[in-house]
Amino acid sequence: MTTATSTSTAAVAHELVDLCRAGRNMDAIHKLYASSIVSVEPVGNDDMPAEMNGINAIRGKNQWWVDNNDVHKAEVNGPFVGENDQFAVNYMYDVTFKPTGQRMQMTEMALYTVKDGKIVREQFFYHMPGA
Amino acid sequence: MTTATSTSTAAVAHELVDLCRAGRNMDAIHKLYASSIVSVEPVGNDDMPAEMNGINAIRGKNQWWVDNNDVHKAEVNGPFVGENDQFAVNYMYDVTFKPTGQRMQMTEMALYTVKDGKIVREQFFYHMPGA
Repeated sequence: MTTATSTSTAAVAHELVDLCRAGRNMDAIHKLYASSIVSVEPVGNDDMPAEMNGINAIRGKNQWWVDNNDVHKAEVNGPFVGENDQFAVNYMYDVTFKPTGQRMQMTEMALYTVKDGKIVREQFFYHMPGA
Repeated sequence: MTTATSTSTAAVAHELVDLCRAGRNMDAIHKLYASSIVSVEPVGNDDMPAEMNGINAIRGKNQWWVDNNDVHKAEVNGPFVGENDQFAVNYMYDVTFKPTGQRMQMTEMALYTVKDGKIVREQFFYHMPGA
């Protein structure tokens, strides 16, 4: 049995996962994200709102993450492909947040929406023990 | 293009989603969950630990949820099917928690693992604005 999905959604899903497994997250954003990308986190603050819009904001957010975390281990599980131009990816990180020195293990699901061969929306769901 | 997965994982995924869309969550547990099911939440307490084991504990947990929440709206998005006996489902709930009267909208991803045609593990990831 197979699960049918559009060519572009499955292809984008696999390319995103391949690039992230290779540690090329910024390349993935450059290649696969729409300029109008919307990125949604559960919580935000004044510096980093929960919902950010546009490729420049999302590049900045990812660069901030890279600059502020020592990544000891990163695992990418998936993709999980749906039927309506959406797919999910499961990430596991073991990182030390440089500003505080706190080491933490976190696992998250990201739900992506694809339109015209580009990722137009990403939403993050967390599973952070002790959070 | 199609995404290949095992017959049983995709079939279980679709059956779970169909039953949940029909509001038959307890039937889904009865039919699709292994007796050794492991259910993992991000946080727990003394009464309801983050990790619960066995079909009776998981039935009890779900019955507690049903008994304690007025469900105004429930949406089921998916399934999102992976290649290694796992699939994900995106749930959105608008509920009032009866003990406090607090109404809240929450959206979550559940990641399921299938073995021998039954769900053996479920892990929940949350996106709860303001949480």
